[in-house]
Amino acid sequence: MAMVCLSDFEAYAKKYLPKIAWDYFAAGADDCTTRDENILAYKRIHFRPRMLRDVSVMDISTKILGSEISFPVGIAPTGFHQLAWPDGEKSTARAARAMNTCYIASTYSTCTLEEISAAAPGGLRWFQLYIHRNRAASQQLVQRAEALSFQGLVLTTDVPYTGKRRDDVRNGFRLPPHMKVKNLERAFEVCKMSPLDPSVTWNDIYWLRSLTRLPIIIKGILTREDAELAVRHGVQGIIVSNHGGRQLDEGPATIDALVEVVEAVRGRVEVYVDGGIRKGSDVLKALALGAKCVFIGRPALWGLAYKGEEGLQGVLRILQDEFRLSMALAGCASVSEIGQHLVQFSKL
Amino acid sequence: MAMVCLSDFEAYAKKYLPKIAWDYFAAGADDCTTRDENILAYKRIHFRPRMLRDVSVMDISTKILGSEISFPVGIAPTGFHQLAWPDGEKSTARAARAMNTCYIASTYSTCTLEEISAAAPGGLRWFQLYIHRNRAASQQLVQRAEALSFQGLVLTTDVPYTGKRRDDVRNGFRLPPHMKVKNLERAFEVCKMSPLDPSVTWNDIYWLRSLTRLPIIIKGILTREDAELAVRHGVQGIIVSNHGGRQLDEGPATIDALVEVVEAVRGRVEVYVDGGIRKGSDVLKALALGAKCVFIGRPALWGLAYKGEEGLQGVLRILQDEFRLSMALAGCASVSEIGQHLVQFSKL
Amino acid sequence: MAMVCLSDFEAYAKKYLPKIAWDYFAAGADDCTTRDENILAYKRIHFRPRMLRDVSVMDISTKILGSEISFPVGIAPTGFHQLAWPDGEKSTARAARAMNTCYIASTYSTCTLEEISAAAPGGLRWFQLYIHRNRAASQQLVQRAEALSFQGLVLTTDVPYTGKRRDDVRNGFRLPPHMKVKNLERAFEVCKMSPLDPSVTWNDIYWLRSLTRLPIIIKGILTREDAELAVRHGVQGIIVSNHGGRQLDEGPATIDALVEVVEAVRGRVEVYVDGGIRKGSDVLKALALGAKCVFIGRPALWGLAYKGEEGLQGVLRILQDEFRLSMALAGCASVSEIGQHLVQFSKL
Amino acid sequence: MAMVCLSDFEAYAKKYLPKIAWDYFAAGADDCTTRDENILAYKRIHFRPRMLRDVSVMDISTKILGSEISFPVGIAPTGFHQLAWPDGEKSTARAARAMNTCYIASTYSTCTLEEISAAAPGGLRWFQLYIHRNRAASQQLVQRAEALSFQGLVLTTDVPYTGKRRDDVRNGFRLPPHMKVKNLERAFEVCKMSPLDPSVTWNDIYWLRSLTRLPIIIKGILTREDAELAVRHGVQGIIVSNHGGRQLDEGPATIDALVEVVEAVRGRVEVYVDGGIRKGSDVLKALALGAKCVFIGRPALWGLAYKGEEGLQGVLRILQDEFRLSMALAGCASVSEIGQHLVQFSKL
Repeated sequence: MAMVCLSDFEAYAKKYLPKIAWDYFAAGADDCTTRDENILAYKRIHFRPRMLRDVSVMDISTKILGSEISFPVGIAPTGFHQLAWPDGEKSTARAARAMNTCYIASTYSTCTLEEISAAAPGGLRWFQLYIHRNRAASQQLVQRAEALSFQGLVLTTDVPYTGKRRDDVRNGFRLPPHMKVKNLERAFEVCKMSPLDPSVTWNDIYWLRSLTRLPIIIKGILTREDAELAVRHGVQGIIVSNHGGRQLDEGPATIDALVEVVEAVRGRVEVYVDGGIRKGSDVLKALALGAKCVFIGRPALWGLAYKGEEGLQGVLRILQDEFRLSMALAGCASVSEIGQHLVQFSKL
Repeated sequence: MAMVCLSDFEAYAKKYLPKIAWDYFAAGADDCTTRDENILAYKRIHFRPRMLRDVSVMDISTKILGSEISFPVGIAPTGFHQLAWPDGEKSTARAARAMNTCYIASTYSTCTLEEISAAAPGGLRWFQLYIHRNRAASQQLVQRAEALSFQGLVLTTDVPYTGKRRDDVRNGFRLPPHMKVKNLERAFEVCKMSPLDPSVTWNDIYWLRSLTRLPIIIKGILTREDAELAVRHGVQGIIVSNHGGRQLDEGPATIDALVEVVEAVRGRVEVYVDGGIRKGSDVLKALALGAKCVFIGRPALWGLAYKGEEGLQGVLRILQDEFRLSMALAGCASVSEIGQHLVQFSKL
Repeated sequence: MAMVCLSDFEAYAKKYLPKIAWDYFAAGADDCTTRDENILAYKRIHFRPRMLRDVSVMDISTKILGSEISFPVGIAPTGFHQLAWPDGEKSTARAARAMNTCYIASTYSTCTLEEISAAAPGGLRWFQLYIHRNRAASQQLVQRAEALSFQGLVLTTDVPYTGKRRDDVRNGFRLPPHMKVKNLERAFEVCKMSPLDPSVTWNDIYWLRSLTRLPIIIKGILTREDAELAVRHGVQGIIVSNHGGRQLDEGPATIDALVEVVEAVRGRVEVYVDGGIRKGSDVLKALALGAKCVFIGRPALWGLAYKGEEGLQGVLRILQDEFRLSMALAGCASVSEIGQHLVQFSKL
Repeated sequence: MAMVCLSDFEAYAKKYLPKIAWDYFAAGADDCTTRDENILAYKRIHFRPRMLRDVSVMDISTKILGSEISFPVGIAPTGFHQLAWPDGEKSTARAARAMNTCYIASTYSTCTLEEISAAAPGGLRWFQLYIHRNRAASQQLVQRAEALSFQGLVLTTDVPYTGKRRDDVRNGFRLPPHMKVKNLERAFEVCKMSPLDPSVTWNDIYWLRSLTRLPIIIKGILTREDAELAVRHGVQGIIVSNHGGRQLDEGPATIDALVEVVEAVRGRVEVYVDGGIRKGSDVLKALALGAKCVFIGRPALWGLAYKGEEGLQGVLRILQDEFRLSMALAGCASVSEIGQHLVQFSKL
C-alpha cells in the first residue's frame, strides 16, 4: 500500500490499531461535530494563487519563539503514544528531531520526560502541562522539564473536566495494565475522578511564571477576549485549539477561531493552531491567516501506528512536500511571502 | 446496551415500542421538516467558550416562576404516556419529582390529574390545557388542577385543528381500547372530529384568568407579534414551541424563534422553549439565547419506554450531567453566568 | 394503499404508467435542476404562524379574473392526458368542474376542445395557446375556444423551441399511434420539426388581442423586465412558470421568480404561479408571496394515472384540505388574510 | 448506447479506457476539490431568461483574436491524446477543423506539431507552451509553431511544478513505451524531475514577445492582480484556468474567477475560460459573465476515447446544439445579445 497522503495513514491505523485505541484517538466529544468541523472549515477557504513568480528556490523553514524549524508543522501534545507504537513517545521524539521540528510532549505520556529527552538529545521540545489539584506535582513536572532542556511550557486550558467521548464510555476505555502515565508519581485512570484542577484561573499564569524561566504558551484559546487576557497575563504564545474536538462540542473550528485570535493579538505574541490539518495546503492556509506554525495531533498518531518513528517521519515528509508544493503553486518562495492576500473565505 | 446519550434511548424506543406508538410519538406534520429543523437549528449555533474560569464548584439549579428546580430542564406536555409504559403519567410524575424538576401534565394524559398528583405528592407540576368547545369541561379541568396544587396553567395555542401526521393517518392511529383520555368526562378518539375549540382568541386569556389564580403560561408562540400580545394579555410565561413539528410544518425551528421572542419580551415575562433538545449543550444554547428553562418532549417518552420512571430519570440525569459539563467547559460555574456572549450563529 | 399525500400518487404513477409515459411527464430539461429546484425552493420559505385567531369558520375560496373558484389551485396546461388515462382531458375537465376550479386545457390535448367542453359543460376553463408558424391554425383555435365558452386565453411564451429532455431523446418519445393531438388539423409528431413559431414577439400580443375578446394571460414570465412588458402590452394575467423545468434548465425556481414579478406588477394584473406545488402549505406560501392562484401540472397527471377523474379529484381534495389546515394553523380564516407577513425566506 | 449529452461520453470513456489513462485524464490535485468545484460553481448561477424575442434565425458564431469560429467553444490544451485514441492529436485537429473551431495543441502532444498541422491543413490552431529550463528548446518550439501557421501562442503559467495527483502517484503513471512527447527532442517522463522552469516571471513575457509575432495568450490567471499584470505586459488574451483542478487544489472555480478577471481587464484584452464546461448552457453562462469563448479539456478526451475524430465532433456538436438552444430559450438570437443581465448568482 503506497502512503501517498495522510488519509492513507489514517486508513492504516483504523485497520490495524486495536479498536479501543483507535476509538480513543479518533474520539470527539458528544456528536463529534467540532472534530469534523475542524477539517471542513479548511474546505471553506479558497486560495488566490499568483502566477509567474520565481519559485525555483524554495525556503519553507521558519522560527518559533526563536528556534528554527525546517517547516511550520510541529507535533501537538497527545497522550498515550504507546497505544500506537511500543516505543511510544520515544519514537515521536526521534521523528520530530529527524525532521527538525518541534514536539510538544504531553503530561499524559507513556514515557517519562527523561526517557523522551534521552531518546532524541538536542531535539526541540516543549512540555505540555495540566495543572493538578496537587500543585506540587505540577511544579515538579515543570522543573523536570526545564532541567531536561525543554524549551517551552504549554499550558492546556480547556480541560477543567474531561469531555464526554461516547465511544470511550461505551468501551470503558482505560490504559492496558502494562502502560502507565509515567510522568505522574502514581498511575491514575482516565475516566475516573480527574486529578486536574478545575479551579485554575488566569492568576495561575503568574504562579507558573514564578516557577520557571521557560516561555509560557497557552493552549485552548478560541475567543478574542481570552486572547487579550492571555497577552495581558504575559504569555509568549497562544495555541488556538479545541483539543481536537474532544472537549466542548460545537465550539468554533480552530481555523475560524484563528482569524479572531490573530486579529486580537495584533502581533504581540506568536499564535499557533492545531486541529484539522490534513494536507500541506491546510498549513499554507493557516499561515496565510496569521499562524506562525501549526501542530498535528491525530496524523502524528497514525504515523506512529504505521511504523513508529519512520511512520511519523513519513507523515511529516508528506506534509512538508505538500506544503512546499502548495506554496510554489500559490506563488510564494518563502514563508515570509505568505499573507492574507493568498486566501479568501468562501461565501457558501 | 449502555445508555450513554439520548440517542441510545431513542434507538431503544424505536426497537421495542409497538410501531403504531413509535410512529405516533415520532410523527411530524406533513414532510416532518420542522420536526427535524428543531434539531438541525441547534447545530448552526456555535459556542464561544471561555477559559481559565474557576469552575470547581458548579451550580446548575435555577428557578421558574419562583420555584427552584435542580437544573433548567422540565418535562413538556405530551399525551398518552401509557403508550410508552404501563404506569403512564404516574411514572413521569415520579421521575420529575425525583430529579427535582417541573412536569407539565397534558390534558391528553392517560392517567387522571388526581392519579398523577397522588403518584408524586409535592412535585412541581403545571397543567397543560386545551380549550374545548365545551367550555365547562375546560373550566372544570382548570379548577381540578388548581385544587390538586398544580402550580401553573399552560395554554396550548397551536392546535385549533390537529396537524396532518401522515403516518398516523396511514396507521389509522387510535388509542388501544384499554387506554383512555381519563381527564375528560367521556373518552374521545384522536383523528376524529376534534373537541378543541378553533374559535379561541386572545380574549379567552381573560376568561382563563377569571377562572384561576394560577400563573398562565402560553405555549406555541413563534413570532414577536404574538409575544407582544401575550405580554399585553397578562400571561406569566411563554413557551416557544411548534408542538414538536406536529402542527404547522415549515414554521421556524424553536431555537430560532426563541431569539425573536426573547427580544420582543424584553424580560417582562419568563420565556421557555421546547423542541429539538437532545444534548446538555442544547440546553446551554437555549439559556444563552434567553430561555429560562427548556422542556423535553420525545426524549421523556423514550426514557419511559426504556424503563418507566427509572428510564426517564436516566434521560434527565444524562442531560443534567451533560449540561453541567458543557457549562464548565464553556467557562460558566452557575446559570447566572450564562449569556448571549457564549454563542454565535454560524454564517453557513 | 392509502393516498394520504401527493407523493403517494406520484409513487403510484411511477409504478403503473408505461415507462415512456412516466418519463415524458417527469422529464426536465438537461440535468433537471430547475425541475427539482421548483420544489426545493419552497423548503427555503418558512412560515411565521400567528396564534389565537378565530379560525372556526374557514373560507378558502377566491376569484381569478372575476370567476369564483373553491380554492386557489387550478390545473396547469399539460399535454397528452390520454397517456395517463384513457379518457384523457375529458376526465380532467370533469374533475376540475367537480372541484369547482379552473382547468387550463392545452393545445396539445389528446381530446378536442369540443370534446373537453362537452364532457363538463359549465366548468371554468381557459385555453392554452402556442402560436404556430401557420397563424391561421392558431387563429382558428382561439376562435373555437371562445365559441366554446373558454373564459381565458393563456399564451405560452417559453417554447420557441422544445427543451432538451434527455430521457425523451433516449426513449425516442412519440405518441402511440392511437393518440393524436386532435386540436390541430393534422396530427404532428413531437420531437420533429416543431410547428411552433420561434419568431413570436411582444407585438403578437396585439395580434392576439385583435382575434378575441377573451382575457389574455401570459405564461412563462420569470423576470421583472418581462413582467413590466406584459403589463404594458395589456395582458390580464401572468403565470410565473418555467414550464415545469422542461425548457431552459437552471433558470429560477418559480416561487423565487414570483417575488420579483409580483413586485414589478404592483397589483396591475393578477399573477399566478405553477411548478413545484406538492402540499397545501406550498399554496399558502405562493399566496403569501402575492400569487392569486397556483396551478398544478404533474400532480394532476398522477391523479389521472391513478383513477382518472376520481384520482384527480383525490389530488385536488388533498391539496384543498391541506391548504385549509395550513391556513388555520397559520392563523388565517380567509384568503384575504393571507399576506407576506406570514412567510420569511430562510437565510440558509 | 445513445450519446445524448457529455456525461454519456464520460461514462463510455470511464468504461473503455485503460484505468491508468482514465485516472490520468480524470485526476485532480489532492482532494480533487477544485476539479469538482469547477462544475459545481456553474450550478450556482441562474439564468434570467427573456421571453418573446424573435429567435427564429440564430447566429452562434463569434470571433477570437479576429478569427471566426462557428461557436464559442474551442479545444483546451491537454496532453497525450494517444492515450485516448491511436491517432492522437491528429484526430483532434481534424475534428476541430471540421467543426470550424480553435484547437490549442499542447506541448505535451503525442504527435509533432508538423503531424498535427499536416492532418488538418488550414484549421485554426494555437500552440500551448511551457517554458523549459532549456530555453532554446522553448524557442525552437515557438518558431516551429509560427512556421506551421499556428495563430496564437498560449503560455501556461500554473505549472512551476506538477500538482500532486494521488492516483497518478499510486498508479506510477508514465506513458506507455510506444508513445512519446514528440515535440521535445528527447522524450521525458512525467512525474520525474520536470524540465519546466520554475523561475519564470512576468519578464519572460518580453522574452517570448521577442521570439514571435504571434499573439500571446496567457493561461492560468485567477486573480484581478494577475489579470492587471497580464494586460500591462502586453498579452493579447487571458485564459482563466486552474488547469482542470490538477495543480493547486482549493483555488477558485474558474467561472467564479472569470468574474473577477473580466472586471479587472475592462475589455482591454479578450478573456476566455476553461474548466467545468459540461453543457451548452455552461457556455452561455461563461459568455454572459464576459468570456469571449470557452475551451473544453476532459470532454474532448472523452470524445476521442469514444470514436476519435468522429467522437470529438459528436461532443462538439452536442455542445453546439445545446448552446444554440439555451441561447434561444434565454431570448438571444446572436452572441452579441448575450450579457450579464442574463444571469445571477444564487444566494445559496
